[in-house]
Amino acid sequence: MHIDIVTVVPGLLEGPFSHSILKRAEEKGLASVKVHNLRDYATGKQKQVDDYAFGGGAGMVMMIEPIARCLEHLQQQRTYDEIIYMTPDGKTFDQQMANELSLKGNLLILCGHYKGVDERVREKFITREISIGDFVLSGGELAAAVVADAVIRLIPGVLNDETSALTDSFQDGLLAPPVYTRPAEYEGMKVPEVLLSGHQANIETWRFEASVRRTKERRPDLLEGK
Amino acid sequence: MHIDIVTVVPGLLEGPFSHSILKRAEEKGLASVKVHNLRDYATGKQKQVDDYAFGGGAGMVMMIEPIARCLEHLQQQRTYDEIIYMTPDGKTFDQQMANELSLKGNLLILCGHYKGVDERVREKFITREISIGDFVLSGGELAAAVVADAVIRLIPGVLNDETSALTDSFQDGLLAPPVYTRPAEYEGMKVPEVLLSGHQANIETWRFEASVRRTKERRPDLLEGK
Repeated sequence: MHIDIVTVVPGLLEGPFSHSILKRAEEKGLASVKVHNLRDYATGKQKQVDDYAFGGGAGMVMMIEPIARCLEHLQQQRTYDEIIYMTPDGKTFDQQMANELSLKGNLLILCGHYKGVDERVREKFITREISIGDFVLSGGELAAAVVADAVIRLIPGVLNDETSALTDSFQDGLLAPPVYTRPAEYEGMKVPEVLLSGHQANIETWRFEASVRRTKERRPDLLEGK
Repeated sequence: MHIDIVTVVPGLLEGPFSHSILKRAEEKGLASVKVHNLRDYATGKQKQVDDYAFGGGAGMVMMIEPIARCLEHLQQQRTYDEIIYMTPDGKTFDQQMANELSLKGNLLILCGHYKGVDERVREKFITREISIGDFVLSGGELAAAVVADAVIRLIPGVLNDETSALTDSFQDGLLAPPVYTRPAEYEGMKVPEVLLSGHQANIETWRFEASVRRTKERRPDLLEGK
């Protein structure tokens, strides 16, 4: 998988893709991420990428021309399965969408910043609009990093232990059960005895019941099959 | 506002807090963020911070002892309004929670990584568990950055134009209307005429109606007051 990310704040994305799982995925050749500076596609001395909104009001709007130039340049090099725009009014990202996107080959993610992009960008180029939740960020960069992380870790071989992702929350429609590690007792707080028993069937039963209980308490909506 | 973030992958957070709005908030003295490396609180040659899960299974679990040492050290220096753990089974983050957190003084955010933290950490230290959505990340770091960004931009004075945040999606229970900027025509695609009219009342009416229409189409649940 290859992901191109287009942004006006490339520095914001320096950390996420040079550490942890994303770095490992790159080293293993399983996924590559390239961050593109939209300002490289701006013209004029000012390298302008945004302008005032027609109709007035607070906040700047990202102009169509530099974006069009950038996207058309990238499209000459690659065919994209999806050209994604990160926006609070997009479809809410979830584990099912992450699973689906993890099967794609080439993705392009355009990050909005300021008040967002000129609507005509969305009409002309964007094939999918994604929101990571009902809140507003200063830009789409962190949202793009979240999507890339959630998607890339699902590619077989990226995680050290492939079965790890399968026992995560949401993959089976339940929240994950509590986890414990050494020491068995810490300041009087003990690990549930069954986990120390070595009796694998009992452990699995306890974990399943703890998952269901936690899901009922915290997210009954997941059990209603919503 | 001050936010301490505790993580085993501090490098992952280098970008987000040295760019854009978060950097500006720091420079203006309106918010400060400090990233703490959990490994600095580990003992032994290996600086071990995680171990196998009791009961077996894939994925490592973050140990309570280094976390306790770190949190107790930080608590000696500051009183926290909230000690937050980023976890997929936490309460789903939204704009209302962002507004609420933006009024706090000191926050500590603990980032899970690997399979999560020993459950006893949650029982002993955590006052609030937050999820940014129904998906799984390789760690809580990007989620912590998302929360910090969404919260800090709401602090008065952080955004260049304070009214900008008030017209964002979700603040009034509606999605934002489309935005446009120059040129007025791009490859035959025109900006809606009303936005060029200079008639402010008509523009506001158009925007409100576009907001409602977009919300009905994309997120009818927001209109049901859910």
